[in-house]
Parts: sequence; structure tokens; C-alpha cells
Amino acid sequence: MKKQRIAILGAGPSGLAQLRAFEAAAQTGAELPEIVCYEKQSDLGGMWNYTWRTGLDAHGEPVHGSMYRYLWSNGPKECLEFADYSFEEHFGKPIASYPPRAVLRDYIMGRVEKSDLRHCIRFNTAVQWVSYDEATEKFSVTVRDVKADALSTEEFDYVVVATGHFSTPNTPYFEGLEHFPGRVLHAHDFRDACEFAGKDLLLVGSSYSAEDIGTQCHKYGASSVTFSYRSAPMGYAWPEAFQEVPLLTRLDDRTAHFADGSQREVDAIILCTGYQHHFPFLPDDLTLRTRNRLYPENLYKGVFWIANPKLIYLGMQDQYYTFNMFDAQAWYARDVILGRIALPDAQAMAADAAAWVQREEAARTPCQHIDFQAAYIRDLVGPTDYPEFDIEGMGQLFKEWKRDKQADILGYRNKSYRSTLTGTVAPPHHTPWMEAIDDSLDAFLAD
Amino acid sequence: MKKQRIAILGAGPSGLAQLRAFEAAAQTGAELPEIVCYEKQSDLGGMWNYTWRTGLDAHGEPVHGSMYRYLWSNGPKECLEFADYSFEEHFGKPIASYPPRAVLRDYIMGRVEKSDLRHCIRFNTAVQWVSYDEATEKFSVTVRDVKADALSTEEFDYVVVATGHFSTPNTPYFEGLEHFPGRVLHAHDFRDACEFAGKDLLLVGSSYSAEDIGTQCHKYGASSVTFSYRSAPMGYAWPEAFQEVPLLTRLDDRTAHFADGSQREVDAIILCTGYQHHFPFLPDDLTLRTRNRLYPENLYKGVFWIANPKLIYLGMQDQYYTFNMFDAQAWYARDVILGRIALPDAQAMAADAAAWVQREEAARTPCQHIDFQAAYIRDLVGPTDYPEFDIEGMGQLFKEWKRDKQADILGYRNKSYRSTLTGTVAPPHHTPWMEAIDDSLDAFLAD
Ligand SMILES: Cc1cc2nc3c(=O)[nH]c(=O)nc-3n(C[C@H](O)[C@H](O)[C@H](O)COP(=O)(O)OP(=O)(O)OC[C@H]3O[C@@H](n4cnc5c(N)ncnc54)[C@H](O)[C@@H]3O)c2cc1C
Ligand SMILES: Cc1cc2nc3c(=O)[nH]c(=O)nc-3n(C[C@H](O)[C@H](O)[C@H](O)COP(=O)(O)OP(=O)(O)OC[C@H]3O[C@@H](n4cnc5c(N)ncnc54)[C@H](O)[C@@H]3O)c2cc1C
Ligand SMILES: NC(=O)c1ccc[n+]([C@@H]2O[C@H](COP(=O)([O-])OP(=O)(O)OC[C@H]3O[C@@H](n4cnc5c(N)ncnc54)[C@H](OP(=O)(O)O)[C@@H]3O)[C@@H](O)[C@H]2O)c1
Ligand SMILES: NC(=O)c1ccc[n+]([C@@H]2O[C@H](COP(=O)([O-])OP(=O)(O)OC[C@H]3O[C@@H](n4cnc5c(N)ncnc54)[C@H](OP(=O)(O)O)[C@@H]3O)[C@@H](O)[C@H]2O)c1
Repeated sequence: MKKQRIAILGAGPSGLAQLRAFEAAAQTGAELPEIVCYEKQSDLGGMWNYTWRTGLDAHGEPVHGSMYRYLWSNGPKECLEFADYSFEEHFGKPIASYPPRAVLRDYIMGRVEKSDLRHCIRFNTAVQWVSYDEATEKFSVTVRDVKADALSTEEFDYVVVATGHFSTPNTPYFEGLEHFPGRVLHAHDFRDACEFAGKDLLLVGSSYSAEDIGTQCHKYGASSVTFSYRSAPMGYAWPEAFQEVPLLTRLDDRTAHFADGSQREVDAIILCTGYQHHFPFLPDDLTLRTRNRLYPENLYKGVFWIANPKLIYLGMQDQYYTFNMFDAQAWYARDVILGRIALPDAQAMAADAAAWVQREEAARTPCQHIDFQAAYIRDLVGPTDYPEFDIEGMGQLFKEWKRDKQADILGYRNKSYRSTLTGTVAPPHHTPWMEAIDDSLDAFLAD
Repeated sequence: MKKQRIAILGAGPSGLAQLRAFEAAAQTGAELPEIVCYEKQSDLGGMWNYTWRTGLDAHGEPVHGSMYRYLWSNGPKECLEFADYSFEEHFGKPIASYPPRAVLRDYIMGRVEKSDLRHCIRFNTAVQWVSYDEATEKFSVTVRDVKADALSTEEFDYVVVATGHFSTPNTPYFEGLEHFPGRVLHAHDFRDACEFAGKDLLLVGSSYSAEDIGTQCHKYGASSVTFSYRSAPMGYAWPEAFQEVPLLTRLDDRTAHFADGSQREVDAIILCTGYQHHFPFLPDDLTLRTRNRLYPENLYKGVFWIANPKLIYLGMQDQYYTFNMFDAQAWYARDVILGRIALPDAQAMAADAAAWVQREEAARTPCQHIDFQAAYIRDLVGPTDYPEFDIEGMGQLFKEWKRDKQADILGYRNKSYRSTLTGTVAPPHHTPWMEAIDDSLDAFLAD
């Protein structure tokens, strides 16, 4: 029989998890299918590669990166440790709990560089179009070599979509934006807080991007930060430079008006209004359509497209857990592809997914959401050989993190947590976060 | 026989010219093919629609618009008059020679609104993929209804590509850009000069975008503008706030270093480095690949794709002439589609195009380039019933414009020119351009 062929779309943490899962199986003697991973960037790492570019890249493809200079992890690294590769193993020593972007990127890449996975990845190759042929039961994947500007098509038995879902901005319109005499941008295009030093900023949104971009800008010299919320304020004990107000209703030149009738003069507006799941390369009947939630509909085990489970989506959930959740998904998907786990019929898959969706909807508080995602991961790792790790213990760390943020939104990154893998309590960072201006790997690792 | 079907991709000036050409034929009794025009924006007008958005639009499509607030025509309106619709007819009175964007947009839309062309246009519909079937000799055009996020495919006998070529930025990398602590953007994302008031700006490039964005920023309060050129400086008699230096070699924090060893501290960097022809919806063998030039290769009469002349490209040239050149192309294309003009065989088309390319390459000075484009348009209008207009007379106006710019780069927009259509000399604008801060239609038309 001809070898099965697997296409992995994207070489970010999720796509790399899928590659690593197959590699782990090979190391214990499994015969692998033929694997091709298509990545439009010139390197692996996904979202964790910083780029100064915004909008379209050098080849006219949408820029994937939403990360910015001076971005530090917004959760303890102890919560996102790979079960098969600890931070301590990678860095050869314990490090502080909240590393900057470059350090986390180094860690993600580290597991890959140790192995032979790079040769499966076709860099500078953007997926343009995927179709499925009912007769041959194969997918056709059409890609563009962005450097040569040349298209090509190959056939596959499975397609793993690992293209992320924090790159296509959700950018609502507010009356008067077209006349605002200053910069208006979405968080996706935010790159450098220095640009906003001395400015009065308006940030629309009340989730992670608003919180993090607002605090970064404050740290790098913004005069004031006004957050405008649609559903609820973040409610931290903000220092004086910050303010939370209800939803922006309109702009009148520089003046922003809010739903409570208040107003404020601002110099720049950053729309921290989240992202859209966007798969322009997929036909309608294969396209996942969902808001940012913990259990998107129509995905069995949160990954298999129920209408055609040879189409697999990784990492499409809203995320407390990240790297190790992607691993758990990838190991499960691998075992289905290798025939080690059999999928139930469509009806059973739909019923199972519906039950999870219902359970998600019953969860109301952040703690319940954390427990929900922990239960979801627990359900995935049970049947595979992904190394046992303390999912629930990490859940406790997440709850601690929530409390630490509540207590001190500008200081929580100075806290330390105990690794569930190594048992080590992280050393404090040499510099409090508010004073740590250099976010390079060297500066962070220096003693 | 079944009616032929024509797809027009894009409802900017070029696509609208094609629609208008067919309408003109219908008015003199011709039976029209079935025409569908796909436009991803929610209105017609193409590049002339201002948007505050940058990067990706509300539906995840690349933002088409490269225009900005306070953009005024950079050439006399007398050079871009439609032969069948004068500015005077549209506005009911003579107007000044250099109108702001909103006024030109109103004029372009005017000719369309008078007619019944809107019903052919499917707005909010992005072309996703085009293929050609040798057996049926038909094109399949797959489009995405961006609001419903739904794909559909239809078949056509001809496809007219009128998607413009000033929307996909050409964004080169310069060493150190990733560490520059301020905003870095391409001209495509420039929206509002007010954002740069009080700043020292570096603009890379020495063509229209550099010149125009630099002068706008100066007008709206930038501290200084440094232009960095690759091939040659623009060479205008710049006022003191401006400076032209050779190519940027690298950045060291805020300090820009140039090829002549000079350096300068800057606050923001605008890459005015031009655009790429980009047709992500076309297969390789139908894709026009060209730099921005007056006669792109492989196009007979500058429009017919020689390898398959049922594929037609409008407006892909670098442009002195704009609206009336698009008309001339569209009328010719229409007559080929209607069978009024027969195309020669591929060899003859290739020979004709090669001769034009050679002629373009022999032209060296701006005046020779203007004459070249005039001759090209003259060649197109001869065989069609597009109203006779004084192409060469407009060429003289372009040469006058060149001299006026050379004489006074901040003042040339105060000049007036005579319409070759109506014979009227434009009245001066009520306010000198450097003092005209309000660029609205109402302000411009006020007496
Ligand atoms: C601003 C920001 C900050 C974050 N901070 C944290 C944090 O501190 N800690 C944390 O754990 N998580 C964080 N995250 C979440 C982050 O998204 C995940 O950690 C992780 O990157 C998701 O991995 P992924 O592989 O699913 O997607 P991505 O990392 O987004 O990778 C997707 C890959 O697919 C590629 N791709 C996309 N489209 C195509 C195509 N058409 N063809 C070919 N390749 C394509 C992309 O180039 C990319 O390499 C943050 C996210 C954002 C937006
Ligand atoms: C900054 C700037 C300033 C300019 N100033 C002047 C000036 O002063 N005077 C002048 O004469 N010319 C000017 N131009 C040139 C301008 O490009 C032309 O005047 C004119 O707009 C070109 O018309 P077009 O129809 O060929 O392209 P466009 O106007 O670019 O229109 C193309 C249309 O195609 C649509 N489209 C693109 N892709 C798709 C898709 N996949 N599916 C569906 N629809 C799609 C777009 O939404 C757009 O409506 C300027 C250009 C720029 C960039
Ligand atoms: N340093 C870091 O590590 C860091 C920094 C930034 C982001 N991130 C990550 O990036 C991911 C995305 O976070 P995010 O904050 O961008 O997205 P998000 O969590 O999905 O939140 C979107 C926000 O936008 C608001 N919103 C959406 N539409 C709106 C509208 N029309 N009007 C007003 N508000 C609107 C939402 O309000 P409602 O509540 O009303 O829906 C919500 O507050 C997360 O995984 C996060 O962890 C990490
Ligand atoms: N107000 C207005 O009406 C207005 C305003 C702006 C633009 N426009 C229109 O917009 C269109 C596009 O103009 P444009 O100026 O953006 O593009 P353009 O005319 O194609 O010029 C591109 C410029 O970028 C430079 N460049 C390209 N690659 C470079 C690199 N790697 N390093 C350094 N320089 C590089 C080129 O230099 P070389 O000379 O060395 O090749 C050239 O100076 C024109 O039709 C223009 O009329 C109109």
C-alpha cells in the first residue's frame, strides 16, 4: 500500500507539536506516513517570530505576526511547559516565571532544533487553496512558493490546519474614525510602545491585548491610557494614569465620546478588539466558523472536523493552556492517523462535542473556565502516550496567576511559581518588570 | 447562441471604464454580452475611496486603499478628463486644476451614477480564484461574498482584470529596522499627516509617494523630512525643512545611516518604495509579472494577455494619463469582445508588443515618456468610437506640469490649466495649497 500523506498547514507551536508527535512515534518504532508542513514565513515559530512589518509582507501575504517589541509572557511559563521538554532542560538552569517573547521563542524552537523536523517544513510557502475529492478521498493542497511566485498542488490523505487564529483582526467601525487626526490601528499592527510616549491613548477592548498593550505603553512613557469596554471593565486596581470607561460611541475630531456620556481627548486609538478565525484557503464545507471560545462547535475532541474527520484543526480554542494543549491535541490526532485510535461514527462524535459545548456554556467564572480546559486536555491525553503531566496542578497555577494579577496588575510578573515538571520554584528575575526595559534573551538570562 | 459572459474584476476607474464602454455601445444599439463586475469594497471608486483602515479590512481581505487624508491630485485635472464627460459638465461650473481626492472621486462616480451601471456590480465580493478550461474555453471565477463568508463560482468567456496595481506594497528590508524605536510603515498604510506633526521623518524612495507624503507631512507640521533615494534624488528646490540623501544603509536605534556616510536621527520611517503587481487569484500561466513601467511585456495593445487574449488587463501601466487611458483601453477591449475588431495571431501580437516595449526602452526623459504614453493611447483610440480628444494637447499640459513642479514644488498646485475639452482655463482655487487645510468637497467647491 502507498504511504499515507499528511499535510500540516503552519509551523507555529501547533504545527510543530504535530511534527513532534510523529517524531516521538517514530522513536518508538512506528512507521510514519509522509509528512509535509507548509509554512509561509521563512522560519518556524509562528506567532512567536517578531516582525517589524505590518499589513502585507514582502510577498504580498498578510503578515501573520501580532506580537510586539517588549512583549513578555502574560502567564507563568510553568503553565505552558511541554510535558516532554522542561524549561530547565532547555536553558540548563532555572529561569524566572515570566520570560519575554524571545526567550519563549527560543524554548519552542529548542525542542525542534534537537530533532530532525526541519526537513519536513517547506518555508516561504503559503497555502492558497485546499479541496477535497469525494471520489478519491484525497485533499488537493495548492501552495504558493512566495519567493518564486509559483503555484503547485499536491495530494494528501489528511490535512492538519495549524494556521493559528490570532492574526486576522476583528476591526469594528466607530463613528468618526475616518476623521480622527491621529493614528488608528488594531492590536495586530501594534509593534513598538515607544511610538506612543507622551501620548494620551484610547484602547478599545477589555481583554488580554488591551491590558497588555496598555501596560506596555504606560511602561514606555505614554501619558495616559483609557480603556473602553463593551461588556465589562477589567476591574484591576489601576494606577492613576489608567482609566476604564464604557463603550466608545463616536469620535468628534480628537474627542472620544463614551456610552456613559463622558468624553476624552486622545492622540491615538488602538482597537484591541480581538481576532477572527479566518481560513481563506478552505472551501465553505470545510471551514470552521466560530468565535474565540474554549470549545468551538463541529470539532470532535476539539480537533476533528466532524463532517470530514480527515480534516484536523489544532489550536483553534481560546487559550489558557497553550503549548502542552497543542501537544495533547497533536498526539491524539497522530494516533487517529496511525490507526491507534478509532473514531466513532459522525453521530457519536457530534453528541460528544455537543456535550462539551454544553459544559463550556455552563462554566461562568475564570476558575471554571480553567477547570474546563484542564478537563478537556485530560480527556485527550488519557488514550495516548503523551507523557503524563500535572494538568490540574497547572490549573492551580493559573488560578494563582489570576489572583496575582488582581492584586497588582503592574507587578504580577515579578512573582515566581513552581514547575510541575521539575518541582523547581522559579528564581525571581534580576529586575522588576516595570524597570526591565531591555527584553532581549541575553538581558533576561544574564545573572 | 448563448450570450457571452464577461467578468470584470474590480470597480475602480478601470473596471468602470469597461462598464461604461459597454453601456456606450448599448446606447448606439449594440447587443451586449452578460456582464458581471466583482468588487470587494462596498462601493465603486477603487483607489479613490478613502479608508481609515490599514492592513486587513473588516472581512480579513487586504485593504485596497493607499490614499490618505489631505491627498490632492498630483497632476492637473485637465490631463485626466474623460473624453465623454468633462469636469465642467459634472460640477456645473469650472473648478480649479488640482482638486482634492473627494472631488475627483465625485467626478469618477458621477459618470456612473448617471447611468444604470451599478446593477452589474456585485459589491462586497472578492475574487478568490480564476481558472481556464482549455476544453470548454471558459474561465471559472470563484468569488467570496465577504459578508456572508460564502464562496461561489461562475463561468465566463472573457475575464477583465481591473484590480489595480498600487495596493500591494513593495517593502524592502533595511538592517536595523526591527530595532527602530518608532513607527515604520509603507506608504500604503499612510493615512494622516497629523500623526507626524513635530517629528523628524525619513522617507525612503524618490518618486510620487515620497514627494507627496513628504510635502503633506511638512504642510501638517512635521519638523523635518529626509528623503533617501536609491537611483537619483528628485532634485526639487526644497525648502530648508527638506533634505535629499543617498540610500539608507542601516539603522542603529534612532540613527539612520546613508550611503554617503552621513547620518540622521529620525522619529518615524515611511517606506515610499512603490508597489507590486499582485494577482493572487490567478494561476501562474495567466499571471502578469512586471515592474511598474509604461509598457508591461506580454500584453498586446497593453491589455490582451497574448498567451490567452480572452484574459484582458486594464490599467496595468505606470501612469501619466489615467482615466482617459483606461477608457481608451476599455473601448478597444469592448470592440474585440463584440467582434468589431479582430485580433491578429499570437506571433503578430507578440511582435507588435515587442516593438512597443523597445520604443518604451528607448525613451529616456520624462517628456519622452509622456510622448510615448500619448502615442500608445493614440494607437488605441483610432479604431474605436471613443470620442476624439486632444491626447497630444494633454501631453503638453503634462510637460507644463513638470516645469511648474520644478519651479515650485510646494506651489505648483496653485497653477491653472486650460481644458482641452471645453477650452476653459481653470479658475484659481480660493486658497493657496499650502494654506488649504480642509480637503473636503464642500470646502473646495465653496466660492
Ligand atoms: C499578542 C499575542 C500574545 C500572546 N502571548 C502569549 C503568551 O504570552 N503565552 C502563550 O502561551 N500564548 C500567547 N499567545 C497565544 C499564541 O497564539 C500561542 O502561544 C501560539 O502561538 C499558537 O500557536 P499556533 O501554532 O496555533 O498558531 P501560530 O503561532 O499563530 O502559528 C500559525 C502558523 O501558521 C502559518 N500560516 C498561517 N497561514 C498560513 C498559510 N496560508 N500558509 C502557510 N502558513 C500559514 C503562520 O505563518 C504561523 O507560522 C499570544 C498571542 C498573541 C496574538
Ligand atoms: C496614493 C495614490 C495617489 C494617486 N493619485 C492619483 C492622482 O492624483 N491622479 C490620478 O489620476 N491617479 C492617481 N493615482 C493612480 C490611481 O491608481 C488611478 O487613478 C486609478 O485609481 C487606477 O484605477 P484602477 O481601476 O486601475 O485601479 P484601482 O483604483 O486600484 O481599483 C481597483 C479595484 O479593484 C478592486 N479589487 C482588487 N482586488 C480585488 C479582488 N480580489 N476582488 C474584487 N475586487 C478587487 C479594488 O477594491 C478596487 O476597487 C494614485 C494612486 C495612488 C496609489
Ligand atoms: N503578553 C501577552 O502574552 C499577550 C498580549 C496580548 C494578547 N495575548 C493573547 O492574545 C490572544 C487574543 O487576545 P485579545 O485580547 O486580542 O482578544 P480576545 O481575548 O478575544 O478579546 C477581544 C476583546 O475585544 C472586545 N471586542 C470585540 N468586538 C468588539 C466590539 N465590536 N466593540 C468593542 N469591543 C469589542 C471583546 O469584548 P467583549 O468582552 O465585550 O466580547 C474583548 O474584550 C489571547 O490568547 C491572549 O492571551 C497575549
Ligand atoms: N497625490 C497624488 O496624486 C499621489 C500621491 C502618491 C502617489 N501617487 C501615485 O501613486 C503611484 C505610485 O507611486 P510611488 O511613488 O508609490 O511608486 P513608484 O512611482 O513606482 O516609485 C517607487 C519608488 O521606490 C523606490 N524603490 C523601490 N524599491 C526600492 C528599494 N529597494 N530601495 C530604495 N528605493 C526603492 C524607487 O526607486 P528607483 O527610482 O531607484 O527605482 C522609486 O523611487 C503613482 O501612480 C503616483 O502618481 C499619487
